[in-house]
Amino acid sequence: MKISARNRLKGKIIEGTKGATTAHVRIDIGNGVIVTSSITNEAVDELGLTVGGNAYAVVKASDVMVAVD
Amino acid sequence: MKISARNRLKGKIIEGTKGATTAHVRIDIGNGVIVTSSITNEAVDELGLTVGGNAYAVVKASDVMVAVD
Amino acid sequence: MKISARNRLKGKIIEGTKGATTAHVRIDIGNGVIVTSSITNEAVDELGLTVGGNAYAVVKASDVMVAVD
Amino acid sequence: MKISARNRLKGKIIEGTKGATTAHVRIDIGNGVIVTSSITNEAVDELGLTVGGNAYAVVKASDVMVAVD
Amino acid sequence: MKISARNRLKGKIIEGTKGATTAHVRIDIGNGVIVTSSITNEAVDELGLTVGGNAYAVVKASDVMVAVD
Amino acid sequence: MKISARNRLKGKIIEGTKGATTAHVRIDIGNGVIVTSSITNEAVDELGLTVGGNAYAVVKASDVMVAVD
Repeated sequence: MKISARNRLKGKIIEGTKGATTAHVRIDIGNGVIVTSSITNEAVDELGLTVGGNAYAVVKASDVMVAVD
Repeated sequence: MKISARNRLKGKIIEGTKGATTAHVRIDIGNGVIVTSSITNEAVDELGLTVGGNAYAVVKASDVMVAVD
Repeated sequence: MKISARNRLKGKIIEGTKGATTAHVRIDIGNGVIVTSSITNEAVDELGLTVGGNAYAVVKASDVMVAVD
Repeated sequence: MKISARNRLKGKIIEGTKGATTAHVRIDIGNGVIVTSSITNEAVDELGLTVGGNAYAVVKASDVMVAVD
Repeated sequence: MKISARNRLKGKIIEGTKGATTAHVRIDIGNGVIVTSSITNEAVDELGLTVGGNAYAVVKASDVMVAVD
Repeated sequence: MKISARNRLKGKIIEGTKGATTAHVRIDIGNGVIVTSSITNEAVDELGLTVGGNAYAVVKASDVMVAVD
């Protein structure tokens, strides 16, 4: 499946925490940058996400803000 | 201002395109990774965003999906 | 690519309108239901979206609200 | 109340799961299509959402991505 | 229609600007606070939004970040 | 840090509830208006959010819908 989301950041899962319904997954995209994602527990199970596995952090362009110092 | 958004990816603006109301800004966050953001033209002006300037791509964790090959 | 987004609604593109930077794509998911998507012009080009083509409307669960009459 | 969100998919609630703060609600919009929504527990209570009740899945167009096989 | 979105801020439209596909609508919610919304041109037409009219700015709780100075 | 998000509503935290992974924070922005935010527990800790403290509710324009009665 190819998706319209402009941002697909390749990395490795370094942490996964399931809550009651919502999980947090952290992906190391290299260069010292960690991306945190909040998804359903169900998605974690369906994709078989595990620490150490390869994964992409995917973000729609309209969900990206810009900031300056 | 410190913000709750979990993802603040530091980089340099490499492209900015204004549309009628909506602009696209591309930020090189290093390691060959480009992040595309869709924000208002007004925000581009207010922050004084210009190609070559330093900027962060900021994303709330609940807007990050995870994908696997 | 398998994505964590819980909602992948299969259908056929019935309309596509490009603006200056942002496009609107409408997908008929059957049963008389049309889903409207707002994505970048760039994504329309990259995915080669055209009227009559098959496509999925993809939505993260945290972007779905519930309403009652 | 009439809302600007372009997508209002009518259906019936088939499942509701409350977590500590966040609930998952699944709506059958017909034709074999189930939409999953992640909302606050508080909203579930306020709207009186129950399995078997009629409901709409509501999504803003800018939160809809497009994918192709 | 009652919606699950936790935030419905009542005000008056003070400005509306249509782009090629995307419109910006500004709502004065009182107390000197202006909220800016980016929606489709189509929604502006369907709701008949005009400067001076009453309107609500509606935001899902998961789209609200928190910041501190 | 200056951010592109168009909406930064100043107020005071009146309630905070942590779930397993996701917290709800309510901010009184004055004039009787309460804004509810759903963020990670981690963000609550990092920003040191506490009831009675000053805070902003921050929302990207593309996440604001408009509704009329």
